[in-house]
Amino acid sequence: MRQEITTLSFSTPGRGFIEITDDVAGWLSRSGIRTGLVTVFCQHTSASLTINENAAPAVRRDLLRWLDGIAPEGDGYEHDDEGPDDMPAHIKAMLTGNSLTIPVENGRMMLGTWQGIYLVEHRRRGHARRVAVHILGQ
Amino acid sequence: MRQEITTLSFSTPGRGFIEITDDVAGWLSRSGIRTGLVTVFCQHTSASLTINENAAPAVRRDLLRWLDGIAPEGDGYEHDDEGPDDMPAHIKAMLTGNSLTIPVENGRMMLGTWQGIYLVEHRRRGHARRVAVHILGQ
Amino acid sequence: MRQEITTLSFSTPGRGFIEITDDVAGWLSRSGIRTGLVTVFCQHTSASLTINENAAPAVRRDLLRWLDGIAPEGDGYEHDDEGPDDMPAHIKAMLTGNSLTIPVENGRMMLGTWQGIYLVEHRRRGHARRVAVHILGQ
Repeated sequence: MRQEITTLSFSTPGRGFIEITDDVAGWLSRSGIRTGLVTVFCQHTSASLTINENAAPAVRRDLLRWLDGIAPEGDGYEHDDEGPDDMPAHIKAMLTGNSLTIPVENGRMMLGTWQGIYLVEHRRRGHARRVAVHILGQ
Repeated sequence: MRQEITTLSFSTPGRGFIEITDDVAGWLSRSGIRTGLVTVFCQHTSASLTINENAAPAVRRDLLRWLDGIAPEGDGYEHDDEGPDDMPAHIKAMLTGNSLTIPVENGRMMLGTWQGIYLVEHRRRGHARRVAVHILGQ
Repeated sequence: MRQEITTLSFSTPGRGFIEITDDVAGWLSRSGIRTGLVTVFCQHTSASLTINENAAPAVRRDLLRWLDGIAPEGDGYEHDDEGPDDMPAHIKAMLTGNSLTIPVENGRMMLGTWQGIYLVEHRRRGHARRVAVHILGQ
């Protein structure tokens, strides 16, 4: 049993879903680990991680619109010194979560057919984002 | 330290909570692992996993109604070619999450007294659902 | 590769965010494990765990108000025999989640600069809460 850790860096273009499935899978492949557990961890509080549909792009657009509706800008937040999109970003990050844990079999993450791993940028502007990835196995 | 992986299959009867605690616990018991970590991973994007109250069934009914209220059908989604319940299902799956990680001690998952593990079906009709389970320990 | 498990106990003062980062980090430090994976698991269904901003306290106040708005008391819940704050607490616990998994490098959790780990009490009154912590590594 062994483990490997890396940090992946992403430059986001602003609010939206960035698919990182291939980045994680590529690193898993290079590790040579065939059976185990992958943990993906987002090191930010205004960006987050989610697994969702990777086929129809309209699904991600609807998810973004829904998040905007449930945590709108300008909703009387006490914390607004970092801009009107900051507090909604923290709420959306809390809802979607920071960490994902995915079993690995035959050298591949056991994702379903339509599942993709997404880094979700919740701020209006693009940011440099870091995602820690840990793999354990043999 | 060793690990085991299995995939559990469930046939859901349509929208609702299906308790899978005993399925996971049974497999953990057969593995013989006494101390470790269980990861439960749902391989779908319109069904998800959650841990909640396993005593009063009214709690799950209220959770379902609340989810229906927050992500209603017919809410002007762009993605609707798979039916009016599809996009709400993706939203609910994002909110509740795909993976759970639970420590194991003395051969048992360290769940609280009132905690049950639930597979949540978000589509109107029943589906065949797969849940990957990974255990690591000794 | 080895693992350690502990259960941390917290006495919450009622609804709110309780930072537990130092409690988890202290125990990690005493374990002597330098590279690995920490899992934090909340053994309750009306309290939960989240990672969010640990600098401005106004962020946590806004998050609490937002949760109160999305799952208000007295909203016609079927399950209300444990008080008007019980069902909202179960909803909020479902939204925020029970388990967190965080990679460890150089003896430290790989949290981002502004990330803190919070136990979130969703009931009005204070409760005794237990959080299981598992670490695996070397």
